[in-house]
Amino acid sequence: MPRQSYSNGQSYRLFEQVYDHIENRIRRGDWKEHEKLPSIRQLAQELQVHRLTVFRAYRLLVEQGKVYVKDKSGYFLQPSGSQMPEAVDALVPAYETVNHLSEIHRIPVAYQLSEAIIDPNLLPNMYLTDYVKRVFDLYPKVLATYSPVQGDEELREALCRYFTKRHLFHLTPDEILITSGAQQAINLIARILVKPMDTILLERPTYSVAYDIFRQQGAQIIPVDIHPDGYNLEQVEGCMRRYKPRLFYMNPTFHNPTGYTVPVEQRKKLVELAERYRCLLVDDDTCYDIYFDREPPPPLFTYDTEGCVIYIRGFSKYVSPGLRVAAVMSRPPLMKPLLTAKSLSDNGSPLLNQKMFLHYFTSDRLQQHLKKLRIALQIRKEIVEEELAATDWQWISPQGGLNLWVRLSGGLSAEKLLAASMRQSISFVPGIICDPKRELTSWARVSYSYANEPQLREGMRKLIALAGSMDSWSINRGGGRSKAGGKA
Amino acid sequence: MPRQSYSNGQSYRLFEQVYDHIENRIRRGDWKEHEKLPSIRQLAQELQVHRLTVFRAYRLLVEQGKVYVKDKSGYFLQPSGSQMPEAVDALVPAYETVNHLSEIHRIPVAYQLSEAIIDPNLLPNMYLTDYVKRVFDLYPKVLATYSPVQGDEELREALCRYFTKRHLFHLTPDEILITSGAQQAINLIARILVKPMDTILLERPTYSVAYDIFRQQGAQIIPVDIHPDGYNLEQVEGCMRRYKPRLFYMNPTFHNPTGYTVPVEQRKKLVELAERYRCLLVDDDTCYDIYFDREPPPPLFTYDTEGCVIYIRGFSKYVSPGLRVAAVMSRPPLMKPLLTAKSLSDNGSPLLNQKMFLHYFTSDRLQQHLKKLRIALQIRKEIVEEELAATDWQWISPQGGLNLWVRLSGGLSAEKLLAASMRQSISFVPGIICDPKRELTSWARVSYSYANEPQLREGMRKLIALAGSMDSWSINRGGGRSKAGGKA
Repeated sequence: MPRQSYSNGQSYRLFEQVYDHIENRIRRGDWKEHEKLPSIRQLAQELQVHRLTVFRAYRLLVEQGKVYVKDKSGYFLQPSGSQMPEAVDALVPAYETVNHLSEIHRIPVAYQLSEAIIDPNLLPNMYLTDYVKRVFDLYPKVLATYSPVQGDEELREALCRYFTKRHLFHLTPDEILITSGAQQAINLIARILVKPMDTILLERPTYSVAYDIFRQQGAQIIPVDIHPDGYNLEQVEGCMRRYKPRLFYMNPTFHNPTGYTVPVEQRKKLVELAERYRCLLVDDDTCYDIYFDREPPPPLFTYDTEGCVIYIRGFSKYVSPGLRVAAVMSRPPLMKPLLTAKSLSDNGSPLLNQKMFLHYFTSDRLQQHLKKLRIALQIRKEIVEEELAATDWQWISPQGGLNLWVRLSGGLSAEKLLAASMRQSISFVPGIICDPKRELTSWARVSYSYANEPQLREGMRKLIALAGSMDSWSINRGGGRSKAGGKA
Repeated sequence: MPRQSYSNGQSYRLFEQVYDHIENRIRRGDWKEHEKLPSIRQLAQELQVHRLTVFRAYRLLVEQGKVYVKDKSGYFLQPSGSQMPEAVDALVPAYETVNHLSEIHRIPVAYQLSEAIIDPNLLPNMYLTDYVKRVFDLYPKVLATYSPVQGDEELREALCRYFTKRHLFHLTPDEILITSGAQQAINLIARILVKPMDTILLERPTYSVAYDIFRQQGAQIIPVDIHPDGYNLEQVEGCMRRYKPRLFYMNPTFHNPTGYTVPVEQRKKLVELAERYRCLLVDDDTCYDIYFDREPPPPLFTYDTEGCVIYIRGFSKYVSPGLRVAAVMSRPPLMKPLLTAKSLSDNGSPLLNQKMFLHYFTSDRLQQHLKKLRIALQIRKEIVEEELAATDWQWISPQGGLNLWVRLSGGLSAEKLLAASMRQSISFVPGIICDPKRELTSWARVSYSYANEPQLREGMRKLIALAGSMDSWSINRGGGRSKAGGKA
């Protein structure tokens, strides 16, 4: 099936598009049973493709018993019988869209180890409530007013000052766009920069939703391995030289799902490579301030002088998930199309949320909150690691972020384990959905940020026991744990 | 130029995609001057298209002097000279994205007749502030919590009760998705239902942003004329039969830009046609409650039993632009892919906004607000009409909504008038951007909802005087005004 090869990371070829087009029309009932379908010549003209392309599509439809050939006179619709059950479902069927991660989250569980979001009890609820009242005093018409598409000016100015001071960015408020979460930023970037024939680089493993977004744009994806000490820059350069990718979507700080951080020397060299090979670096940074010991190296934007970096900074995770505020920074040539895409997408993020975020973000309370949050998260991470220590699963202890990237032992399939664990109300993310190659079957992402301490401990114990019962795997075979080395 | 033919409403053909792909790579510097480009065979294989398609693309590049042929041995890059000024702009250029309306709004003006949004002074600012405080008392962790992707359950239940009671919808809360404004709903629907080879129906004229969104998905657009008394149903049926469109995006209640309303008998027949020809009706309804004399007929969803209607109900316009809350209603087979698209797009709208909206929407104060708002808007509309009465411009007096659709006299170009009026700080929407055929050059959309009464009167006087100075047009040649007849 073309659909399958598409979602498995192959390119979505033209005859498959034509196949999907015809199949879709069959399913919606454009033709009756035994009715003649358009001729190859006719369809080729209508769809503006070569006749051989239509021929290949028809041949596949014949192979699959959906269409039959009669007396060389043409293609006819095979009576469907039970082969097209979707026909009764939708009057006009939708195209396939996938969000692998969101499907895991759709089922509520008691031991939530799959969502990389922070426990609401760790967030500054009381303080934020205060800020709301202040916002309404300051801006009595805030709810009656649309935000500019680019985002509230006052907020963009504040962020500009912040990033200029903290990370030495060369930046103006016009180079900032406010989005509804970092996710929307990835989506807008994909829309303006990626079309079906384009190649892009993605880390392996990567954030699975980014993979799903770029695949849905039809991108051809070249994986770049990420290691505890960053990338192999020769591999990166080789990929840039050979494939001339439009962009490299990356998550170099407390990488999702591994927790790895790309060191500062590599950051500088990456910017040089990006300039030389004209490949944009999309630095998606949602956990910068969630470090345990020391601050990570500056974002790649710090080293960018030629406009080869787009910086996405998310705040939802650790400031206020309920507000959905993120910022994208880029130079004017890309800011203009980003603004258009944002205007088509939702015409600007809500003003109230931006004003509330502004007042909290610029207050001292944020720093106090972050200090407490780091400690709380580190404790939670250590609880998971204490449980892992009793297994021979392997992981690198992350120095920040919300996740542990764990290799199960004995080649146990994480997907099988998940299927079983969901019946015990325990969720985690199977590593395979983070792998553009779909090969990392024995890896799992365990998030320690949402469940509280007793839930984490109990959930991990149950999960480990379950895995033990599923496999030849044996407990206490020796510690697989290793400390991260050479990381910033 | 292919780009031009693309934005002029023609289909985006495959060789043009290949042309754009090569041109893009030229512009970003994939090849040096006089360097050999990939062979036709090589590129055809890489892009999975037929060699003739690549040949057509190369031929166009040669015609345009971007590439030259040497000794039959291949295609070489022509030195650019000044022909590619974009090269210096962006390291990696973005693809073209357009939002014609948003470009008009980007420049602030004194007489704002282009934005169909309501003057913040007419909105219930004080009441909304009260509701915020109530929301924080009820849900102390609202800012720390992500909303479900589909939207807050409590809000969906309230909307379900409301639409069941008011419009007799057969509906469950699972058939409602909360979006960030109606615009996001259109965007999500376009993403799941429209791919480059698909045909859709759009009204003529139509909401220009919807046109831009569907065009960017690569849709082939068939226009359906809308008249003061609705559509010509024979034309609609003819289009559905001939083109088998996937959907008909419509705005049947206080239509944007004309203000027309499709009568109840046509609504019922449209649903029958939609079922028969398996064409989804997308009813985009943002002004339902902004009527002047009597309530408009029920939305098309009321008559739908087969799942052939998607209903978009916007509330931003008249309840709270600052909250950005809209609802999409559809049957389960389309709700599932809509949810995935929403999850990829922004992972759910902010919870705070939904809770605030919920508490205001379910209160009595909303009805009191609407009563006042209708009177205020009617007065503003009448001011514009009083000024128009002195001209021989033509319009049909709308019975609701936010716009007047006006035909300038003497064939005056609305685009030329806009260029001149912007210099006097007066904005309006030239009708041509609302016309899928790009022929309605003498029409203008004048919004009477944002500017206050003195601004409206003065702005219209200046605009009319300016038009008079530009044209052979003469004042007081006789009233072109006609009252709407046969409308519900």
